[in-house]
Amino acid sequence: MTSDWGRFVACGVVTLTTDFGLKDPFVGVMKGQVLARYRDARIVDLTHDVLAHWPAEAGFWLSRSFRYFPAGTVHVAVVDPGVGSEREIAVVEAEGHVFLAPDNGLLAAVAEAADAPVRRRVAASALQRLVIGTPSATFHGRDIFAPLAAELAAGREQPAGLGPAVDELIPGWIEDPVVEPGRVTGTVVTVDHFGNVITNIDGRLLLDLPHPVVRVAGRDLPLRRTYSDARPGDYLALVNSFGVLEIARAEGSAAEGLGLDRGAPVTVSRK
Amino acid sequence: MTSDWGRFVACGVVTLTTDFGLKDPFVGVMKGQVLARYRDARIVDLTHDVLAHWPAEAGFWLSRSFRYFPAGTVHVAVVDPGVGSEREIAVVEAEGHVFLAPDNGLLAAVAEAADAPVRRRVAASALQRLVIGTPSATFHGRDIFAPLAAELAAGREQPAGLGPAVDELIPGWIEDPVVEPGRVTGTVVTVDHFGNVITNIDGRLLLDLPHPVVRVAGRDLPLRRTYSDARPGDYLALVNSFGVLEIARAEGSAAEGLGLDRGAPVTVSRK
Amino acid sequence: MTSDWGRFVACGVVTLTTDFGLKDPFVGVMKGQVLARYRDARIVDLTHDVLAHWPAEAGFWLSRSFRYFPAGTVHVAVVDPGVGSEREIAVVEAEGHVFLAPDNGLLAAVAEAADAPVRRRVAASALQRLVIGTPSATFHGRDIFAPLAAELAAGREQPAGLGPAVDELIPGWIEDPVVEPGRVTGTVVTVDHFGNVITNIDGRLLLDLPHPVVRVAGRDLPLRRTYSDARPGDYLALVNSFGVLEIARAEGSAAEGLGLDRGAPVTVSRK
Repeated sequence: MTSDWGRFVACGVVTLTTDFGLKDPFVGVMKGQVLARYRDARIVDLTHDVLAHWPAEAGFWLSRSFRYFPAGTVHVAVVDPGVGSEREIAVVEAEGHVFLAPDNGLLAAVAEAADAPVRRRVAASALQRLVIGTPSATFHGRDIFAPLAAELAAGREQPAGLGPAVDELIPGWIEDPVVEPGRVTGTVVTVDHFGNVITNIDGRLLLDLPHPVVRVAGRDLPLRRTYSDARPGDYLALVNSFGVLEIARAEGSAAEGLGLDRGAPVTVSRK
Repeated sequence: MTSDWGRFVACGVVTLTTDFGLKDPFVGVMKGQVLARYRDARIVDLTHDVLAHWPAEAGFWLSRSFRYFPAGTVHVAVVDPGVGSEREIAVVEAEGHVFLAPDNGLLAAVAEAADAPVRRRVAASALQRLVIGTPSATFHGRDIFAPLAAELAAGREQPAGLGPAVDELIPGWIEDPVVEPGRVTGTVVTVDHFGNVITNIDGRLLLDLPHPVVRVAGRDLPLRRTYSDARPGDYLALVNSFGVLEIARAEGSAAEGLGLDRGAPVTVSRK
Repeated sequence: MTSDWGRFVACGVVTLTTDFGLKDPFVGVMKGQVLARYRDARIVDLTHDVLAHWPAEAGFWLSRSFRYFPAGTVHVAVVDPGVGSEREIAVVEAEGHVFLAPDNGLLAAVAEAADAPVRRRVAASALQRLVIGTPSATFHGRDIFAPLAAELAAGREQPAGLGPAVDELIPGWIEDPVVEPGRVTGTVVTVDHFGNVITNIDGRLLLDLPHPVVRVAGRDLPLRRTYSDARPGDYLALVNSFGVLEIARAEGSAAEGLGLDRGAPVTVSRK
């Protein structure tokens, strides 16, 4: 966990994940601050509409998305209810990617999903050396995270230069799925734009359950391969394109139809 | 229709049009997969908020928007209720632009609007040659369309290499306007952010109708040049900046005020 | 105010601020038209969700955001209820940045906040020279502002070439705060994504008020440093990361809780 054998080779891509929304210029000025230090950055929005003040959703999506970006990408995630307090800044380095976030549990899902993650906390001396001045009390995304990301993405700074490796970061806010013989129990993590209900149950946990039945909101649902395997209006479960169990309704919204939201329990058992 | 005289000269720009919304990281990971193959791609969002599961709206906007992008742009549109089923992938090449979409009628409006379109379907052998592996069952935007777009935008692949030209693709979902002597009847295709009601009636169809009157939602509206030609609160019709007939309310929402939505009939006749 | 000592040194970055929303392809085709003239433009969305038809909010955000972008940035803002009428196009040049907007008061806040602004109006002859043809009656963002921004951002055009300096542009729509001995009165300008209520009272106006009390919606609130200085659910006032007075609710929405919206009065006085 404290191995430090490799250098981070930046590719110039920066992803942003926040709960800032797109209504105000928060995300825009973060991009301005990245470009102010590194004019050639390629900035991609992952999402800015995760649940406010709840770092778990950002961490979940990031852990399931980062491998679709080129190695050498810097991923910045800011969901930061403790901004302005004493919380520190977490860095995770894994599989050729670097992740920056408040040390509030956000990166727990990433560190868990990735191979051989190296965890760090940013040292005050590193911020001084990089001339990242006293931040505002309420917008570290712009004042700290954006300049840090720019320095990493430009290849001028190594994660190892930001602070020493540590054994643990602040733990995540969602319990891991419980795996028992013949049965896996997990939690709804988010609901997507189509009303599909997304859980934290990795599809690989279901490999030992032949003919699985998914129990959610008082119903038993079959596990299908894709939406078009059900008739319009019918509910189904599937392992989605991010590799986790999802409850869907063909050409409709499962979340609305079943009254499901974050935190709801989902159980899969063999028939 | 099967002419094949020219090479596609890519300019590095990729546009994305989907019904994925921006709430989840779907669009972000598509961009990650474009950049993973072509680091210098310039990716522009056209819109990700077209009506879910209804390819017609995406096709309409694309057909009315593509000419504002530089020649050599690759346009990707994914509204894909049949994802995971046997539907194929359509390619249209016209006026120096290339369009990729599920073959579900989405590109019908584009092929109709463009000069001398060449239509193709992507061959399985092309995907193999480009090392585009077995896709997930539910997210071909990321797994097939993004890598295809990257190869075209990078200039490494020609549309002609993706599959042979075909005479027809799956037809569109909206009927063309009916043109009779002294009268044109069309359909509301979408409602924009301001509540303006947008039809599929091209302004050129009205050239033969002197002093046209627009009949919609039981009202007769005058045809004006611009919003500020009406008093605040008044309804009006105009040929909008995309060249089609639009019903508007000066400094207000015509859709709300008139109770209009997609599919509503609109008739224009001479006075 | 008519000083003209320096050249504008473009850095290739263009920001966009509009009331177009992201539901339709308006913003996308604006970007297409920037790229059609200048392939290497780096386009950043500031926000496209300011209040429709009310230029003041766009001007406020722009005036508070531009310094986070690199010098040499071209900022385009289009909130344009008078599009198609005779209104002119305003240019402001200040602190190494250039701003383009309809001459409807939008840039008043920018010119007021910036050092030594030079104001101009775009001359018809400049549009002709740059081959910016007859625009549509309703979408000058695409037809005029995007090509103008591209020429400036590419370094091919100087602001001074667009038209002579003028003493005044159309004034803004929001009254400046009233400063009296021991008391400052201002206005709510916008409500952000988190429900924080943002005023036009610059934090520097409060320096002469020891132990200030903020009176809003019939309540007296203390001035704190950051959100985490209040208990979850409590209201507080703070000088936010953009340097203006904000009314917030720790981990909640002050706008909802206090029933506050744009235009509401806010008074700060000494205890």
